[in-house]
Amino acid sequence: MGSDMWDAVAPDASRRLLRAAVDSFGELGYHGTSTRHIAAGAGMSAGALYVHYRTKADLLFQIALTVHESVLAELEGAVDGVEGPPARVRALMYAFACWHARHHRAARVIQNELGALEPPHAERIAALRRRVRALVRDEVRAGAAAGAFDVADVEGTARAMASLAIDVCRWYRPGGARTPEDVGALTAHLCLRMLGARPS
Amino acid sequence: MGSDMWDAVAPDASRRLLRAAVDSFGELGYHGTSTRHIAAGAGMSAGALYVHYRTKADLLFQIALTVHESVLAELEGAVDGVEGPPARVRALMYAFACWHARHHRAARVIQNELGALEPPHAERIAALRRRVRALVRDEVRAGAAAGAFDVADVEGTARAMASLAIDVCRWYRPGGARTPEDVGALTAHLCLRMLGARPS
Repeated sequence: MGSDMWDAVAPDASRRLLRAAVDSFGELGYHGTSTRHIAAGAGMSAGALYVHYRTKADLLFQIALTVHESVLAELEGAVDGVEGPPARVRALMYAFACWHARHHRAARVIQNELGALEPPHAERIAALRRRVRALVRDEVRAGAAAGAFDVADVEGTARAMASLAIDVCRWYRPGGARTPEDVGALTAHLCLRMLGARPS
Repeated sequence: MGSDMWDAVAPDASRRLLRAAVDSFGELGYHGTSTRHIAAGAGMSAGALYVHYRTKADLLFQIALTVHESVLAELEGAVDGVEGPPARVRALMYAFACWHARHHRAARVIQNELGALEPPHAERIAALRRRVRALVRDEVRAGAAAGAFDVADVEGTARAMASLAIDVCRWYRPGGARTPEDVGALTAHLCLRMLGARPS
């Protein structure tokens, strides 16, 4: 995941607007942001914004969709072809935490503003979030069933693992002592500990 | 911690305004909220609000102060008189996660809006946050030094433990399958696992 998740957004003006919206929502919150402020941040007029997004709600939804599809693709890619429960959990949680460090600003905006999504948008995003949670839970369950992990509470432990990775976007700041890769490696290690994985 | 952290706020009108501000900030964000909206939520006029709080920034600061002083008192109380690193960490992390489930709405508002605090307010809150983080780190360090825990990265592991407890305020909803006490107990258990605590 070296590339920027906005790269696939076209045309260029749409991409600039999404980035400006992340900045505005991060600074002022969704309800405190005007489309005029977002357009200005993208160096455009409010009129030009409406060519690309009908409403502020559409911008929030597009950001949420991009963020969740990016996480999901990252996690599915991380475990693809990896064999054995501990190695799969290590790859999954490394990718999960690393993604949240790299994309901490957009992730934080979306975590804070999930409640501002309009109902049909919220339902679509909730479905993607359920898939992310299922990915983690299925790895925990499979490892426990195979005897590789010692887990009394699969659902709660999987929730805690996701929680640890997601919370990275709240506190992570670039330029600190730890790189996203450092955060990913420590998160993966701590999750294997939570699972009571046999030391390999 | 059966009591409500707002109970000590007097007079009654100040307390009602703080509660209404938590509601408004939670719904619309700090920047999306007007003092008029907060006053209406407390059943008061905007003029009556100014008798108690000069500005919206003052309200945010009072909420942040109440929240952080409440967490700190809860954590200090939880370990007071408890002997032995595993028992101390268990008590600390149970209290930390439990508090964030019980007070998830106010905690979430404050986590989301820390960046909106004005500089002198932000400095005061940052000092309280450093004390909370030091409490966790000192327990990890003491347990590692005593040979009760197996921790290569004290700072990072303590950060992850705090992260796990704080993130409870993002996802916890009352009326779900787990009580705050359930969440506290699971968090404490998983933190002891992260620390490689010897099973007792």
